[in-house]
Amino acid sequence: MMELGMVGLGRMGANMAQRLARQGHSVIGQDPDPQARRRIEDEGLRSVADLPALVQALAAPRVLWLMVPAGAAVDETLDALLPLLGPGDTIIDGGNSNYRDTTRRARRLEDAGLHFVDCGTSGGVWGLAEGYSMMVGGEAETVERLRPIFEALAPAPDQGWGHVGPVGAGHFTKMVHNGIEYGLMQAYAEGFAILHHKKDFALDLPQVAESWRTGSVVRSWLLDLTARALADDPSMAGLQPWVDDSGEGRWTVAEAIDLDVPAPVITQALIARLQSRDGEAFADRLLAAMRHQFGGHPVKTA
Amino acid sequence: MMELGMVGLGRMGANMAQRLARQGHSVIGQDPDPQARRRIEDEGLRSVADLPALVQALAAPRVLWLMVPAGAAVDETLDALLPLLGPGDTIIDGGNSNYRDTTRRARRLEDAGLHFVDCGTSGGVWGLAEGYSMMVGGEAETVERLRPIFEALAPAPDQGWGHVGPVGAGHFTKMVHNGIEYGLMQAYAEGFAILHHKKDFALDLPQVAESWRTGSVVRSWLLDLTARALADDPSMAGLQPWVDDSGEGRWTVAEAIDLDVPAPVITQALIARLQSRDGEAFADRLLAAMRHQFGGHPVKTA
Amino acid sequence: MMELGMVGLGRMGANMAQRLARQGHSVIGQDPDPQARRRIEDEGLRSVADLPALVQALAAPRVLWLMVPAGAAVDETLDALLPLLGPGDTIIDGGNSNYRDTTRRARRLEDAGLHFVDCGTSGGVWGLAEGYSMMVGGEAETVERLRPIFEALAPAPDQGWGHVGPVGAGHFTKMVHNGIEYGLMQAYAEGFAILHHKKDFALDLPQVAESWRTGSVVRSWLLDLTARALADDPSMAGLQPWVDDSGEGRWTVAEAIDLDVPAPVITQALIARLQSRDGEAFADRLLAAMRHQFGGHPVKTA
Amino acid sequence: MMELGMVGLGRMGANMAQRLARQGHSVIGQDPDPQARRRIEDEGLRSVADLPALVQALAAPRVLWLMVPAGAAVDETLDALLPLLGPGDTIIDGGNSNYRDTTRRARRLEDAGLHFVDCGTSGGVWGLAEGYSMMVGGEAETVERLRPIFEALAPAPDQGWGHVGPVGAGHFTKMVHNGIEYGLMQAYAEGFAILHHKKDFALDLPQVAESWRTGSVVRSWLLDLTARALADDPSMAGLQPWVDDSGEGRWTVAEAIDLDVPAPVITQALIARLQSRDGEAFADRLLAAMRHQFGGHPVKTA
Repeated sequence: MMELGMVGLGRMGANMAQRLARQGHSVIGQDPDPQARRRIEDEGLRSVADLPALVQALAAPRVLWLMVPAGAAVDETLDALLPLLGPGDTIIDGGNSNYRDTTRRARRLEDAGLHFVDCGTSGGVWGLAEGYSMMVGGEAETVERLRPIFEALAPAPDQGWGHVGPVGAGHFTKMVHNGIEYGLMQAYAEGFAILHHKKDFALDLPQVAESWRTGSVVRSWLLDLTARALADDPSMAGLQPWVDDSGEGRWTVAEAIDLDVPAPVITQALIARLQSRDGEAFADRLLAAMRHQFGGHPVKTA
Repeated sequence: MMELGMVGLGRMGANMAQRLARQGHSVIGQDPDPQARRRIEDEGLRSVADLPALVQALAAPRVLWLMVPAGAAVDETLDALLPLLGPGDTIIDGGNSNYRDTTRRARRLEDAGLHFVDCGTSGGVWGLAEGYSMMVGGEAETVERLRPIFEALAPAPDQGWGHVGPVGAGHFTKMVHNGIEYGLMQAYAEGFAILHHKKDFALDLPQVAESWRTGSVVRSWLLDLTARALADDPSMAGLQPWVDDSGEGRWTVAEAIDLDVPAPVITQALIARLQSRDGEAFADRLLAAMRHQFGGHPVKTA
Repeated sequence: MMELGMVGLGRMGANMAQRLARQGHSVIGQDPDPQARRRIEDEGLRSVADLPALVQALAAPRVLWLMVPAGAAVDETLDALLPLLGPGDTIIDGGNSNYRDTTRRARRLEDAGLHFVDCGTSGGVWGLAEGYSMMVGGEAETVERLRPIFEALAPAPDQGWGHVGPVGAGHFTKMVHNGIEYGLMQAYAEGFAILHHKKDFALDLPQVAESWRTGSVVRSWLLDLTARALADDPSMAGLQPWVDDSGEGRWTVAEAIDLDVPAPVITQALIARLQSRDGEAFADRLLAAMRHQFGGHPVKTA
Repeated sequence: MMELGMVGLGRMGANMAQRLARQGHSVIGQDPDPQARRRIEDEGLRSVADLPALVQALAAPRVLWLMVPAGAAVDETLDALLPLLGPGDTIIDGGNSNYRDTTRRARRLEDAGLHFVDCGTSGGVWGLAEGYSMMVGGEAETVERLRPIFEALAPAPDQGWGHVGPVGAGHFTKMVHNGIEYGLMQAYAEGFAILHHKKDFALDLPQVAESWRTGSVVRSWLLDLTARALADDPSMAGLQPWVDDSGEGRWTVAEAIDLDVPAPVITQALIARLQSRDGEAFADRLLAAMRHQFGGHPVKTA
């Protein structure tokens, strides 16, 4: 059993702390928000408010798992942690950091004698119950030392996680994972939209989704979720057609182009999301204007 | 000089009749609508109300140019004309017929001893002044006989028209022409949308369009029209983002797939138009629902 | 238990006949090919060579499951069967027929007093062991009468199949199912291609695929197969980049356009397959020529 | 008439120097390569080998036009020029610099009391004869002072160039210009590929291109060049299907995503170029492997 400090007790961090604790690991959570701390304390876990308290509470060599928002928050956390830690301590970044940031941070931590491991983590709100999929980057020796942690967080000790390459490789792989996710989601969404618009068949969409969940070539966990969503609201009338993107899809597209890899489907899945939020639709207005110019085609005035 | 009956005096038919008459050809127009007839009579052309009158007014061997809406109207016109015409008469379909219909009709007319020529016609409302671009399909001898007509309608006798292949080839070529048009329009629309959204540069879009109209690699007639549209309304606030499609774009996409030719840009240009009219956006709603299911991501309720 | 005639003993038909027989149903197979018959006879099933023998061997009211190649073969089989069958008999088309053909055939069979049910069937070579996913179209009463058959073929009696709408709806749904499949496959393929080309990380692709198979958002049956393929040949050096398409993808794209539904990802997935087989690449050659024309850019001569 | 130093005498720089000189401006060219210098000297222009000589040869306040490859070469040239120049001197970057670099460089030059103007330049090898299209960014006063230069380089004094916004805006606009160019080129290439593959019509492609050049909606300068290329080699057999990209297309795609602007056509045009160079086609191989896994579909082994 290992001892681990969980930095950041948002939904993901709190759930992961709990899953580790349930499997017998000793986890101390840290978050400045008292409500966030209370949630895991209600589950019997110990928590502290700040990083110095966390570091003090852990025995060296320490293991800290960062579960803070990607971007500036990671750098700020590292800024705060570095003076507190010493050689041999290990930091795992389990968030959705850009792999280029990870590579840069790895050099900094290495210079300070620390070990740095990046862990792309998938599973969302279901991970506490079902286990997380983890793509781990870092030195083989360090990853091996952390094996009990990954085995506890994974769906099963030997499933759903892997050491995929050097530091940075974990976040790179997670980025691509999310790019694929965009493509898969869009494929299902388009398919159900076609079924929905075939009005003369009055297709039973929840039934279709259920039929596909077992036996079919398109069965998947995302389809399971889609079936739940369709069962709740077959016409989707309760939701606005507004689809956010959290960054990793666009990173994947940028990376594909950077590597000269054609990725039309992942790219179009991202573009579909941009489109869903493009309330102004300047291009479409200009197209209407052009058609009017050359063909006298009717337009709809605003 | 030749004698020709123009069947259909809509905007296109009336303009073409006028252009032919201005160049010295003898044109009789036909349209059941008195207003349509009056427009060309005001220009000094003769017109009749029905097809029997038109056929009677023309000396054999007759030349009839059909400028009626693609689809059923062409077949109905041919049904009405066939009993009235005799061997050696020629029918030119100058509309946007599907080339498969044209091939089918050609067999029927050939059996009746008639000549059939298909002419894909581009130029829109500008054709009267600037001349039309024409892609002509049919037997070489027949096309050669009609040469004075094409030379009069074209921007210049030896420019803007050509005999491109057997009957059907004219409409096929026009279909692809329109598919290209979709791609060109979408490329400009996207580019100007990017410029429009770069708010910190406050770019002068009419000025940009003007700068490109001469000397640049992207200069074109569509750009000239785009410049006019942007000069009228740089923010496009006066128009709704609703873009129709008139059939030839989707035929081009279907044909590309049928021929196993990858045509991603023409296809995406068509899809962008479908998107502009997809008020329900079922796919986007379902995507939002999926994201909520797996990640607890926030959604906008309707 | 029910009695059923299986028309066509190819891989799919033979496997389905066996699965039905294993669950206690009485199945007689029919195929002109002695080898195809011998395969199911080795499994203890009875078979006949021609349709008259099959019809004679079944007690009225008969149930016949067609598992013949989509297209002309279905019509030919119906031509042969119709004179042999009588009112009350039922034909199920379990193949990948175009739903428009199915609707047309339904009218013909209905006129003859027969019942017609269409069943889109997914599962491929794995169906015998794991069960098939089936999307069933037809009259509620008829489908209900056939319930034991669907329950036996499905992964579990109440899973993996459903009555989704009227006749035609089963094949329509299967068509869209395959369209989605194209999108899913392409999304995975692009993702792994990006990982493959990130040479400096030397990613362990089989390990990545394994990590994703449990716990991750992208877990699916297609990913399970992808993991097997990558484990066999991580560099894919043994295969040519040549991807066939079996028709339903292009039907889905055509249908989406016909229904005005934007489906960029399914469409691009189809286009990617066309591209994989476009050895001539005329468009790319022409692009190279254009670049040379306007910019003097270097080209590679053939 | 103005005096101007042209830094970089490659094809573009040499041609622009000549066009300026022909219109009466006093141009001194600079290039370390004696052959490059000789070319403009043969045209009666003066040239020098290095930057100190160039700066010394110009009277203050100096105007220098940089026509060096985008990227490091621009920074190196600025590093070398800065110590040589004084307040009031002006540098114009006429190359294809990334607008973000331009914004950064502008701050540096401004700190040194210099004026900095960015000019996106289009026209390629044809500019010497036809004039260049120029999108100019910078302070209004500075751009106004340089007006005679732009008027001389443009197709006509009041055509083909414009002051589109602050420094950076010129290169931003040129970047988008090139993105549009990608889309236009791909649209034509796809269209002609469809025509080429309609073998039963044996279409005369050079004739088609000629017919479209006047009167049609798709007429453009790129079409003029396409017609030349097709006239030279209608089957494109002489060229390999290998299409390079020079950076601005991918910058446009990245910028569109950054601004949340859906740009499917420009993006697919870029992806088509990546595809043309993707000899390995890993994704296609993996797709073939997946199809084999689930359906036993035949594959082509390498």
